Amino acid sequence: MSDDIGKLNMPAVVLVRPQMGENIGAAARAMLNFTLDHMRIVAPRDGWPNPAAVAMASGAGRVLDAAQLCADLPDVLADCDYVYATTARGRDLTKPVFSPEAAMGDAAKRIKDGQRVAVLFGPERAGLENDDVARANAIVTVPVNPEFASLNLAQCVLLMGYEWMRASAEVTDQTVEMAGTDWAKGQDIEHLAGHFEDRLDEAGFFFPEHKAQSMKINLRNMWSRMPLTRADVQMLHGMMRQMVRWKERD
Amino acid sequence: MSDDIGKLNMPAVVLVRPQMGENIGAAARAMLNFTLDHMRIVAPRDGWPNPAAVAMASGAGRVLDAAQLCADLPDVLADCDYVYATTARGRDLTKPVFSPEAAMGDAAKRIKDGQRVAVLFGPERAGLENDDVARANAIVTVPVNPEFASLNLAQCVLLMGYEWMRASAEVTDQTVEMAGTDWAKGQDIEHLAGHFEDRLDEAGFFFPEHKAQSMKINLRNMWSRMPLTRADVQMLHGMMRQMVRWKERD
Repeated sequence: MSDDIGKLNMPAVVLVRPQMGENIGAAARAMLNFTLDHMRIVAPRDGWPNPAAVAMASGAGRVLDAAQLCADLPDVLADCDYVYATTARGRDLTKPVFSPEAAMGDAAKRIKDGQRVAVLFGPERAGLENDDVARANAIVTVPVNPEFASLNLAQCVLLMGYEWMRASAEVTDQTVEMAGTDWAKGQDIEHLAGHFEDRLDEAGFFFPEHKAQSMKINLRNMWSRMPLTRADVQMLHGMMRQMVRWKERD
Repeated sequence: MSDDIGKLNMPAVVLVRPQMGENIGAAARAMLNFTLDHMRIVAPRDGWPNPAAVAMASGAGRVLDAAQLCADLPDVLADCDYVYATTARGRDLTKPVFSPEAAMGDAAKRIKDGQRVAVLFGPERAGLENDDVARANAIVTVPVNPEFASLNLAQCVLLMGYEWMRASAEVTDQTVEMAGTDWAKGQDIEHLAGHFEDRLDEAGFFFPEHKAQSMKINLRNMWSRMPLTRADVQMLHGMMRQMVRWKERD
């Protein structure tokens, strides 16, 4: 992911494996209604650029023009400090669960502190997979009628945008103090997770076979939920390297 | 207007001179997402019932089935105690102007007091006329991007529904929660820290000697700062045990 966006003063809207171009265009409109114009797209089903998206976006076409296309989620999150995953249903992953209002209030504070923030939206039909959610720091769930919960992609983006605009208006005149902490970024966590996963795989940790995938997701989820500093990440890398040296010593 | 609705425990959604049937259907869906199911329709352009509305509503068809058709606005408002008019732009009318949140908070209080409340939405193209707005008690305006304000009818209904559900449920879940989480206790963390420290000591991690103490402190500090669950702690113990087995294997 090229680091060409400078200071991002709003959450990035990340569409993960979107299906219909029309929905991408409608999401762009929903974003721009509430001043969001930084879109990232991960592996769109119908390729990119997408004429159906452009047709639907009409006045919000510039959001699509500036959208960043990424091959996978780790790529898209590499430069992000904090990531919210929108999900309709509860997950078995231990993560903070925010309402849209609380999430965007939190995002506004983080952005004011100079952090980069992203919100993930899953594919239209099935939503985000657990593997996607495991890479986020927190979950956002819109409280809907449990007997009729049919929010589409653009509506979900619309509600988050609405809360973003409310939150950013409130935070602008508050002073939020800067924490001097050097937090690990998305790509640091990704490398750390990959390092541990590889070594533990060699060591035969992910056993039995049929549980390996969920063990890996739980581990990913743990890393992304932890408030790790760069120093923590270095220490954890060092621990693992030392265990390997220890094994190889005799 | 027949008085057959008894005590109305939610705001009536009043579509004033709606044009496209599809938009009426989409409004019904948006309503039901947030538990609103009392719709009133004033002088729809294409008559009533409207097959295009039914097709679009799909799972929310019962909102349309129960919708009340009225000839004009005075008729529809006859049984209402308090009426909010949604408008995109400011009007030259002296009226209280609410945000969606404030309006629905106000509505929830009135309904609790036994009042009947309605929210007016204008025709797609031009919105409510001043003559309509003049019949309302208050104005509601959604704060949108002044450079791109393209909310459609169903989106406007969606945002009001969202605020209604928050207000009525008194969704005070602004507090972040991690539902059902079994957090590790102090002694669990202590055992974990001790386990890692012992094994890492054997492995020669705390090196050079004069830095060993501060490295141990940093590690302890990291564990105690992390929001670890019991499951996380078990996984971390398991990781370390597996590394030892791996070492001892050959």
